[in-house]
Amino acid sequence: MWMAGRSPYAGGIVSDPDRLYRILPQPPFTPQIGALVEMMNYARSTTLQAVHDLSVNELDAVPPGFSNSIGMLLAHVAATDRLYQTASFEGVDPYETEAYAPFVGAMSFGKDGERVQGRTLEELLAQLAEVREETLRQFAARDDAWLQEVMTAWDDFRPNQHWAWFHVMEDEVSHRGQIRVIRNALRAARG
Amino acid sequence: MWMAGRSPYAGGIVSDPDRLYRILPQPPFTPQIGALVEMMNYARSTTLQAVHDLSVNELDAVPPGFSNSIGMLLAHVAATDRLYQTASFEGVDPYETEAYAPFVGAMSFGKDGERVQGRTLEELLAQLAEVREETLRQFAARDDAWLQEVMTAWDDFRPNQHWAWFHVMEDEVSHRGQIRVIRNALRAARG
Repeated sequence: MWMAGRSPYAGGIVSDPDRLYRILPQPPFTPQIGALVEMMNYARSTTLQAVHDLSVNELDAVPPGFSNSIGMLLAHVAATDRLYQTASFEGVDPYETEAYAPFVGAMSFGKDGERVQGRTLEELLAQLAEVREETLRQFAARDDAWLQEVMTAWDDFRPNQHWAWFHVMEDEVSHRGQIRVIRNALRAARG
Repeated sequence: MWMAGRSPYAGGIVSDPDRLYRILPQPPFTPQIGALVEMMNYARSTTLQAVHDLSVNELDAVPPGFSNSIGMLLAHVAATDRLYQTASFEGVDPYETEAYAPFVGAMSFGKDGERVQGRTLEELLAQLAEVREETLRQFAARDDAWLQEVMTAWDDFRPNQHWAWFHVMEDEVSHRGQIRVIRNALRAARG
């Protein structure tokens, strides 16, 4: 499990198969943040399942009719989490920071930077886990009143914190759906 | 907007563009149910955007490498909502009921029943709205304590109510992600 030994309750998810299918907000998180964390954990577990055992070649492949590889989508999921960290916790536009530069390629699917290529599943998953660990650390220091606040990072886009982090999860689920069909297309092409 | 005039706050979503990007649980829903409803509303708005203006031919098309058409996925989203209504609100396995029979084809992507074919966007969206209206009506009569309860419809699958309805939203988002790539593939094939 990606966050075994990190989350105070990841152990429960591992030892009880039903636990995965229950949204049960837990300390140290406040109730609404906790529900969001449960959803993010569930979404992540399905992402891990969708990419299980993929080789570098499979991660890099773009089947006919598709625009992105599975590796690109995984890196994009980490880049989205990282983008909202800067915007949400620091109130700063990530594109104004040097720290975000390494993520711009994946965030823009290669349009504004390098495409993701040649990275192993282990490397991609380690980045996802590392970024998420910081998100959860920040969540633990905040509360449900904060979650309702409007974000100030951008002038022309003013989501509240709750939507922002819901969206990080929702975007991951959308790309996980795409990963599943890319994986099927790769399998079909192999015959 | 699909639920204009039905939800007590849909009007707000329409008149204020920022409202869409804020999770703000509202009466008559209790806080956690309300947050879920906000997420379901947002997810639905992105589904509607993804299928905007599609013709019957486009809804029926299955591009090379894909297994499902966009029409099939839309019908599946309605069938999933309907499935969880019976399981969650009645505590009954939907497959044991006659009322669920018309949804089995879409639920199983045509494996255990008819494939979805020849239905207009209007028909598909009307079904989505009709099913969802009933879900929201049921939500309004329940509370956050209920949301934590474990579902009793199935012996071998015991999610809690919160997970079940999160999953209805999450599954829609996953298929919306797939709808986007199918739509791109159709556009690419047209050149």
